This record gives sequence, C-alpha cells and structure tokens, in this order.
Amino acid sequence: MSSPAVPGALVQEFRLIRDLARRFGRTGTAVLRGIGDDAAVVRPDGNRDLVLTTDLVAEGVHFDPATASWDDIGYKAAVANLSDIAAMGGVPQYVLAALAVPASRTTAEIRRLYGGVMRACRVHGVELIGGDTSASKAGVFLSLTVTGTVARGRALTRDGARAGDLLYVTGSLGDSLAGLDLLTSHPGGRRLRLAPRYRTFLIGRHLRPSPRIREGQLLAAHAPALATSAIDLSDGLSGDLAHICEQSRVGALLDAAALPLSPACRAYARARGLDPVSLALTGGEDYELLFTVPPDRRATLDRLARRHGCRFTRIGTIRPKTQGLRVRGEDGTVRRLVSTSYEHFR
Amino acid sequence: MSSPAVPGALVQEFRLIRDLARRFGRTGTAVLRGIGDDAAVVRPDGNRDLVLTTDLVAEGVHFDPATASWDDIGYKAAVANLSDIAAMGGVPQYVLAALAVPASRTTAEIRRLYGGVMRACRVHGVELIGGDTSASKAGVFLSLTVTGTVARGRALTRDGARAGDLLYVTGSLGDSLAGLDLLTSHPGGRRLRLAPRYRTFLIGRHLRPSPRIREGQLLAAHAPALATSAIDLSDGLSGDLAHICEQSRVGALLDAAALPLSPACRAYARARGLDPVSLALTGGEDYELLFTVPPDRRATLDRLARRHGCRFTRIGTIRPKTQGLRVRGEDGTVRRLVSTSYEHFR
Repeated sequence: MSSPAVPGALVQEFRLIRDLARRFGRTGTAVLRGIGDDAAVVRPDGNRDLVLTTDLVAEGVHFDPATASWDDIGYKAAVANLSDIAAMGGVPQYVLAALAVPASRTTAEIRRLYGGVMRACRVHGVELIGGDTSASKAGVFLSLTVTGTVARGRALTRDGARAGDLLYVTGSLGDSLAGLDLLTSHPGGRRLRLAPRYRTFLIGRHLRPSPRIREGQLLAAHAPALATSAIDLSDGLSGDLAHICEQSRVGALLDAAALPLSPACRAYARARGLDPVSLALTGGEDYELLFTVPPDRRATLDRLARRHGCRFTRIGTIRPKTQGLRVRGEDGTVRRLVSTSYEHFR
Repeated sequence: MSSPAVPGALVQEFRLIRDLARRFGRTGTAVLRGIGDDAAVVRPDGNRDLVLTTDLVAEGVHFDPATASWDDIGYKAAVANLSDIAAMGGVPQYVLAALAVPASRTTAEIRRLYGGVMRACRVHGVELIGGDTSASKAGVFLSLTVTGTVARGRALTRDGARAGDLLYVTGSLGDSLAGLDLLTSHPGGRRLRLAPRYRTFLIGRHLRPSPRIREGQLLAAHAPALATSAIDLSDGLSGDLAHICEQSRVGALLDAAALPLSPACRAYARARGLDPVSLALTGGEDYELLFTVPPDRRATLDRLARRHGCRFTRIGTIRPKTQGLRVRGEDGTVRRLVSTSYEHFR
C-alpha cells in the first residue's frame, strides 16, 4: 500500500512500517495477509454483511498536540470510527491507518499515535491489517478505515424511525464539550471552581470516550431489531437527531428534563454559569448512541439494559414530520429545536 | 462517518456531502447502504477473499496543483489504490474517500477532485460507498481505501518467488518519471528537443497511469496461479524488486537490455543525455506489475498475453538469496543492483 513518500525518505519509511508492523500488526488466522503486501487479504464470513467506515483527523482542526497526547489523539481517532460501527450494530474487525506526518515529528511520537489507535482497537478485538505512511508539509493527518460485520440485513440505519417510536440515548451528554472547554479555556483548572474529580472525569470523557459497541450490538441482535434507527453522537444531539429525522422523514419532541447529565457536567455548567441542557443539546463528540425503539419493544429494552448493565435513557418521542423538531423545556414550554452544532456555544 | 469538521463549517459540510453523494454515490444492489449513514453496508461474496488497501496523497508531497489539475490528482490517487488491488490479482469493488481541504479551496475544485477519483474507479466498476470530509489548516489531503475480492486463497503476494522463476513486468518503465520531469523542469517543452507526441505520451503516463487490473486478474485466475509473486511498481523497479526478494528470501538477476522502454522514454533520455536504463530502474509511479512465473508456466503466460493483448516482458530471473540483487548491463557485465528510488536520479 505504501506509496512513495518524500524523495529521500523511502528507506526511513520502510523501516518505520516494519517497526509499526512488528509492534501493532499481529493478527489472527482470518487475516490471510496483513501489513507488508500491496493490500491486506481477509476471509469474510459469508453469512454476515460487511460494514465499512472512514474518518480522518487533522492537526489544528480536530486536535492540538498542546492539549492532547499523541496516544490520546490516536485513541480518539479510532473511537470516531469504532463509534460509527457501533451505530450500525456491528462487530468491528479490522483497521487500516493512513498517516501523513511532517519531518519534524519523531518516530517515538508516531509510535505513540499508533499505540493510541491500537489501545482503542484492541479492547474490541480490532486488528491492524494495513496502512500508508507519508510525509506532510504541515501538520499530522490520520485517516482510519474500520471494517466490521453485522448479521445479514440487520444493520441499524438512520432511516427507519416511525412516528410513535421512543427516542433513547446511551450514557450521558455534554461531558465531552465540557472537557474540551476545561482543556482549552481553563488549563490547570485555575479560575474555575470545580472539584478535581469532576475535572478529571470530564477531560477523560473528551480525550478517551467509549464507543458503544456492546450497546449497538444489543440493539441490532434481537429480531425484530429493538432499534428502528440509530446514529452516533459526533456532531451533537440536536444536529444528529436532525439526521435521523431527515432520513426517516419524521419529526421529534425532545424532553429537556430527561436528558442524561452527569453530576460532573452539571457542576461544570453551574461553575461556568451555563445551561446544562444547552451543553447536552449542542455538545459534540460524546460518541453516545441515539436510537429509536417502537413502544411495544420497551419492556425488552429495559430488561436487556438491566441484564447487560447498559444505560439507556428515554429522552423523547418520534412525531410526524409535520411537527418538526421540538423540545419541551424544563418549565414545560415547547419550542422549536434549532439544529445547531457546538460552534454556537463557544 | 462524517466527523465534526471546523466549528461553523458543519452546514456547508452536510451540503457538500449531499452534493457529492448525488453526483458520485450511485451504487448497485450489493451495496445495502452507501454514503449518508454512519457506515456503509455491503453484502460480501462468501466464496471469495476480501482485499483491502489504503493510500493517501498530500499536497506539496505527492502532487502540486500548479502542475496537475484536481481531476488528475484525484484520478492518480485512485490509481495508486487500484494498482494495489491489481497487484493482489483482485477485482476492485468499493472506494471510501477521506478528504481534508483548506477553506481557500472551492466546492468546484473538490468536485473535480472527486470527479477524477471516480473517473479512474468507474472504468473498473468501483463504487463510492463512503467517506469523510474535513477542514485542513494547510493543504489538501486525500486518503482513499479501496476494497476488492479475489478467489479464495488465490491472492498474489510478495513472498512466493522461488529461485529459477522468471521475472516479468507489464507495460513500459520510466515513462512516469520522464513525464514528471517534463512537467516540473521543462514546462512548455522549451529548451528540450522532444517531439510533441512523445511529450504528450510521457506526461499522460505520469498524470493518468493505468492500473493493471486485467493483467493482475489473469495472473491470479489460473490454477496453479501463473504468478508465484507480484507487486506493483510505485517506488521504482529496483526498490520494488527488493521487496519481492526480501519477502521471498531470494535474489534476482535483471537483464538491462530487456527492460521495456517506450520510444518516447528513449527519445526523452536522449534529449536529456540520460541513461534510459537508469530511468527504468529508478523511476517511480509507473504502476506496472512486477511478477514472477515458474519456467514451466511460460508457454501458458505467452498464450494468455497474445489472447488478451497484454504486454508481459521477461526482464530477468529469480536467483538464490546468496547471489543478491544484480543487473546484467547492456555490455554484458554483471554488477550489484543498488535499490535506490527516484530521488537519486533527480
């Protein structure tokens, strides 16, 4: 796969690929050919559909080496992809990594970046099977492709929500945006009254989010599927809900009082004089799953949540398209939901 | 798949993705879900192995918008990936495109870039099933992932060459490097006595190389496989031959007089006062296939070449590892082959 990098850098490139392959490229028997050939070769399971996603991160756009370690940057890039597989109800399998890196970066930094990618991947059994390394004139670019499988015809898509379905979300919302703000606006925690454990929690949620792989698989595994639609929250609840509503041709009514907020996020909002509901609605990169469930499947969902220790919170209802996207505030008033993303908050 | 780009650019990003999906994202029935969900879903053929490759190009490293159109840049990025599938003997199927682009670039330029990618892909029936678009602080980065299939256990790898095998190459060598030199050192063809048709041919070979998809499939399709090993020439003959020899634990003797050189490349070398053999040995990005064939399969290969109109040139022999990599010059003397890449020429 390796294309010629910078003239003069080929020998180092080959050495680096060999080093990365040795450290991170060990694979199981379904991988007939991993790193080191023109392409990887894997044996597919003919009874399952194949899920494929790609996501890139760019220095100065998605990350800043001043506020995140290379390990964290790699980890989070992997999570963005794994979360997409989770939102399809898939079992992630393989990752390919394409990297462009300026000459000023050291081999140790590149190793830590890959180390972070594989730290996120290995938890879920995902194997590195290929990639490409190249020079960059300015800044690091990391583009990952993750593949997975899902039972035939059972992938969770964005277009199956129907009026009357219940709207759910995993985990808690807004933590990642709070963590980002703490890292960028309040380094060291000075000038902000917030308990250190909350600070640690929120920054951890920003730098090391968890892809909801298990939850996605639960939602896809039951016939008929528990979830009629699903999406992962990368842009923020209001924006990602708009995707589901647009593709399913429905409306939705959110219940602001029901939005799951962590104690840390509430404390942070209080300290900053912000509305925590706004954080939950507009905060990006939570990597929780937003999904819809028919009312008659609610008892099954509750039972599964208890059995598997999953946190599923009902946050609203799918409505006919004519009603648009609305939110019922904590005071009971219903207003139109503006599908903003987190830039409006900052 | 789309991760949040730059704060403030989300709406434009969504609009761009929709536009690209409409223009380039039409797919057949094996694609259960293409662009527009968290991940693509495709139904694999359980009787075939899956081939996956990724390759990225970076502005200022792999291309320069001053000497190549956006269409050409996209086309060539696709060829780098398609050529990897060809070198495995695969049938390419799908492409995912991850793009980072500075705000200074227009939607029309991005469209032309994707247009070039799809121009190369569609010839081979390859469908765009997903991607990611993002901002970039500096320069365009395009990372493609191409998947393909190959009959079970029949992928052509780099490690199967044995002493005694014959060494072959498709097409002609050195043209791409000559084309690059014409574009960068001799714009407009001034100061170099070279027939315009040669100039056009060489620049075409640099900007619009052909991935040897059909040839790769022929080599993998016959049982036992015609080729014991294969690689695509992206780094240059001497460097890529070294990959085969290293992974197969063999040596090789090249025959300089046998290297296939186009009339255009010979004329260019003459005009520049260069040795055309050096061009053939060190020129990168020819995207020809280098492969090895057991002597008793030679007649079959020749027959197939005639029937399918393929150009396969025998350029040497695989030797025991102890003999290393050597080249017999046009004067008959044998010397060690230094596995350089094209930076040494420039």
